[in-house]
Order: sequence, then structure tokens, then C-alpha cells
Amino acid sequence: MELLMKTIEKIGDTDKDVMLKSKERVDNLIKPLGSLGKLEEIVLKLAGITGELFPRVDNRAVIVMASDHGVYEEGVSPDPQIITAMQTCNFPRGVTGVCALAKQAGADVITVDIGVAADLKEPGVINRKIKYGTDNMAKGPAMTREDAVKALEIGIEIALEEIEKGRNLLTTGEMGIGNTTSSAAIVSVLGGYDPHEIVGRGAGLPIEKLSHKAEVIKMAIDVNKPNKEDGIDILSKVGGFEIGGMAGVMLAGASRRLPIVVDGFIATAAALIACTIEPKVRDYLFASHASVERGAAKALELLGLEPMLNMGMRLGEGSGAVLAFNIIESAVYMNNEMVTFQEVGIVRD
Amino acid sequence: MELLMKTIEKIGDTDKDVMLKSKERVDNLIKPLGSLGKLEEIVLKLAGITGELFPRVDNRAVIVMASDHGVYEEGVSPDPQIITAMQTCNFPRGVTGVCALAKQAGADVITVDIGVAADLKEPGVINRKIKYGTDNMAKGPAMTREDAVKALEIGIEIALEEIEKGRNLLTTGEMGIGNTTSSAAIVSVLGGYDPHEIVGRGAGLPIEKLSHKAEVIKMAIDVNKPNKEDGIDILSKVGGFEIGGMAGVMLAGASRRLPIVVDGFIATAAALIACTIEPKVRDYLFASHASVERGAAKALELLGLEPMLNMGMRLGEGSGAVLAFNIIESAVYMNNEMVTFQEVGIVRD
Repeated sequence: MELLMKTIEKIGDTDKDVMLKSKERVDNLIKPLGSLGKLEEIVLKLAGITGELFPRVDNRAVIVMASDHGVYEEGVSPDPQIITAMQTCNFPRGVTGVCALAKQAGADVITVDIGVAADLKEPGVINRKIKYGTDNMAKGPAMTREDAVKALEIGIEIALEEIEKGRNLLTTGEMGIGNTTSSAAIVSVLGGYDPHEIVGRGAGLPIEKLSHKAEVIKMAIDVNKPNKEDGIDILSKVGGFEIGGMAGVMLAGASRRLPIVVDGFIATAAALIACTIEPKVRDYLFASHASVERGAAKALELLGLEPMLNMGMRLGEGSGAVLAFNIIESAVYMNNEMVTFQEVGIVRD
Repeated sequence: MELLMKTIEKIGDTDKDVMLKSKERVDNLIKPLGSLGKLEEIVLKLAGITGELFPRVDNRAVIVMASDHGVYEEGVSPDPQIITAMQTCNFPRGVTGVCALAKQAGADVITVDIGVAADLKEPGVINRKIKYGTDNMAKGPAMTREDAVKALEIGIEIALEEIEKGRNLLTTGEMGIGNTTSSAAIVSVLGGYDPHEIVGRGAGLPIEKLSHKAEVIKMAIDVNKPNKEDGIDILSKVGGFEIGGMAGVMLAGASRRLPIVVDGFIATAAALIACTIEPKVRDYLFASHASVERGAAKALELLGLEPMLNMGMRLGEGSGAVLAFNIIESAVYMNNEMVTFQEVGIVRD
């Protein structure tokens, strides 16, 4: 609890003065005012986050948190649970979706077992297992409050280790059969939505089972009565270890003034947990893509961020966020390489 | 005319067999079916275009065509016309928006003066000037049919030179004060739209002048009566030299089975000209971003392509297309680096 508390305390406001200075420069680059749209907004936000007029984003990583979900036994996923373990081992081997995209984007992939329901033999996976999966949230809390704090602190620790290495741009990915159920529960609680409006097909649940998935979530909320003002309470009752770990990474990033990219539905649920714990975290987050998982648009709306990419993706793993690394880097190039009207001798009214 | 004719003749169908083989592989990569959305579609389309199961996109360039517009004298742009000449010289210096983004994306910028209304002293600009700007389309054709063919053929020649150098991914950019007026005219003619629905603010026309811009376009269409079945006729009557050059690049790319990325509003107008001349060109094109220039969404709808990026951009120059180079490269990485279920020993139903 001490690390979590210290981390939250360190999260400050972004630097409005540097943002203003950055805006002044960006408005004077040789282009029609505002014509580079979100690239300009990205530069301003990075300036506010880092306190630098010329921030860098050249040392990038995606931290993938893997865990299993007790609610799996309610039949909310079409995949065998062992897929979590198998796929988690595929990250260090570089052969999953996010790995391919991270290679293109010049980003490292860090894989953490925070609660996979099997012992993993792959040495590339960092073992920070809390338990062999969460408990079934349809019958009681997914985890104790203590374990929720532990999940957050594991995320913080892993992120701080990476930041120590010089990272200046982070994102989170996940692997966990059943985790769209948990994410839909979080979004339903925080947005006050009926789970029937939020549940989606995840990795490929048949449409006729969507209603059952929503009913399971309703039951989980009824049984546990999460307190929507308390992020740790929501995480412990209807969350997942990997979601806690991801939220921890976001808290740590904000505490060290680092930009953090939010991937799709599950990462957005994690971001909502982080922002419920400390609302200032939001200023350190970038939304990446509009996931086609059903609740994703409402989740991003709740978070109050707009995505850059419209790719029809719903893989998770951090894949959409890593795609957005390129765009954030492009914004930095715009800021570094373009010149101002004054510099090329054009006088404007 | 001979080069244009020969180029059009060479444009064939994309390779449906390779697309099917590509789909079979992509469907078996270790991810839920279809979960990488447009990245998967990009790979299939690239396979069809190139005829290769593992296409490459590592030799990239943006060809920027610069020209002036006679219709400028009708007061359709807030900027002094000399900006075309000044900004054209800034491309070889690497300091404009597209240059910054091209540097990030590992792409070269080729700058062509195809009709700037001034003599340019910058040696980095390729001089293929047809005339010192088009004529005023509100009073008669913007150019002769002969010059329209010349513009197309200059685009073809420049593109073929680049393709000779080994390029495997191209896009077009532009610089030309007044060219959103010309583009809006093209889109109005081809879509049968009232220009009032299509005109936008371009580089920053005050809103109260939008209606005047639309009236100028209506006049140009009334005076010239372009034949909507004849791309060369539309180009000559209400087009621009740079728009012809861009359409030429697209025709050349398709004739050599190369993928071509379409930037924003002006590039989409050029693509519509190219596809009116030869409809098969469409299969070789990728839309990049949803420009916020007012007619852009309708133009893309006409072209029948969906953008990948939602960045609120409206700079032109090829800037949005170059951003999309990263995404297309990411799709290629997905195809090259991910493994299939069979390869990792997962058996699916």
C-alpha cells in the first residue's frame, strides 16, 4: 500500500506554461493554423506532460500483463482457458500480433505473468504471479482488496523499472481469457450502464451468448456491489489482476511525467480504474484506436479521450496502442523538423 | 498521348488467387479471426496488387506536385499566390509538414514544379512546368485538353523514374494556392453535388466567403460543361496541373502493380480523375486519413475507400498519406512476423 500511496502522491498537474509556449511555436510552424489537427494536440499534451518544449519518445515499450479470470467458468468465452498460458509464452518469442507491430514501431515488449492459471516455462516471461487466476466474480469478489493493491503495485514496480532504463513512452497490453467480461463490468459500474449495452464478443463469443455474458456481469455487480467512487474496490470486486497491473503502469507513468498510450477496450477499463483512483492520470493518457469491441466507444467516452486510429481492430495485447506510437513519434518530428514562418521570412497579418 | 495510352493499357486486374492464398494465411495467424481489422485487409490488398504473398513496402516516396490556379483571381483563397512558390522551395529544404512526417516514416520527398506561377531558384525542385498556372476556370477551361494530357504524362514519367529506382510504395502530395476550389469542382461534377455542399475553407478561407467560392465553382461548371464520363475533360476544364500530375502518378503506379496511398481532399479529387480514366486504378489505392476539409468525406465515399486515420488534419502536401505509410508497413510486419496456429501447435475446431 505504501508504494501505491507514494505513487499517487507524486502525480501532479501537467505544465500549463510549457503547453502555452509549445502552442505558440506550433501555431507559427509553416502550415495553415491548426491544419495538422491531432498531431498538434499531441505535441502540446506531450509538452505539458514532460515539461519540455521538444519532448522525446524514442525509447518505447509495451508492458503486457497476463492473467486468468475465475468468471471463465460461467461460459463467457469461447476459447479454452489454456490459451492464456500458451499465448503468454508467445510474447517473448516475438510471434504475436503486438510483437509484430512493436517491431515495426521500434518498441520492446515486456511480458508479465501476474496471475496466469498455469506455471509457465518460458524464461522470457517475468513471474509476478499473485494467484492462479482471480476468483469467480459472479459468486463473490474477484480478488481481495489486498490483492488488488498488490496488482496495482506490481504494475507500478514494472513500470518504474522500465522508466529507470530511460523509457519515455509506454503502453500496456494484456492477455487473459475472460478479460472483456471483467472490463465490461468495470465500464458498466463506472458509467452506470446496463451490461447489456456494453458486452461485446471479445475473442469471438457467438452473438446468442452475449445476453448470458451480460447476465453474468449483472450478477457480479449485484453480488459484490462495487463502490463507483473507489477504484480499488471496483478492481477487487469485478476486475482482474492484469487490469490492476495495467492501471498500476498508468499511475507510475503519470507519477514520473511520462506519456502513456491507452490501447482498446481492456486498457480503457484499466485507465478508468487508474483515473478513479487519481483523476489527474487522465492528462497523461493518449487514446490510440477505436476498437470494434462493442463497449469500447462508450468506455473511451467515459474516459474523455478521442482515438487517432480507425482500424476495425479488436485484438488487444496493446496492438492498437503500438500502432499509435508511430503517430506520436510523427507529432514529435513535426515539432522538431518544421520551421516557423519567421524562420523562413514569411510575414503574416 | 502515347505514354498515357500505353500506361492505361498496362493496368490490369489485381491477383485474386494470391489474395485468396494470403487470406488463408492471415486467417490462420495466432489471433481471433479478423481481429486485426484493416491491417488484415491491407495485407490482402497488397498481395492482390503485387502478386506476392509477402509484399514489401520498404522503399517509399511521396511525389509532391506544385502548381498555381487561374481561379485564384476570383478571391477563393485568403493567401497570397506567391505562397505556392515559396512553399514549393521549402520541400527540398525538408522543413514543411510532409517533410517532417516523411522523415519519421523513412520516405523520400520528390518535388515537382508542374505549373507554379513564378520561376523557382531552388535546385531541389524538378522543373516540369507546363505554364505559369492554369487559366481562370470561371471564365473558360483551366487548361487545354493537350495540357491535361501533358500533366498526366508528367506524373507518369516522374512515377516511372521513381519505380525504376525500386520504389514499392508511393503517394502524392501537392502545393497550390486555390487547389481546394479546383478539387471541389471535380468532386461536384463527378458526384453530381451542388458545390455549396462540397466547398470547404481550404487553408483558412473565412466562413462568410464559402458561398462565394461555391458560386465561382458553379460558374466554372456552367461555363465549361465538363463531361463526367471523361476524366481528361474534367481535368482540363476545372482541374489543375498538380491534380493531373497526381492522377498520372496513380495511373503509373497501377500500371506497374504498385500500391498508392491517397492523401486528403485534393489527392482524392486526383484519384477520382484517375479512376474515371481507368476504373481499375481503384484497386491499387489506399485511403489514408479522414481530412476535415468539408468535401473530403463525400469525395472518399465517391472513391469507395475508407480511411485508416482520424486525425483532424487538413494540411495536404501528402501529410496524411505519409502517416499511413507506417500503418501499411505495420500490416506487412503483421504478415511477416506473426505465426500461424499450426506453427505453434494450437489445433482449432
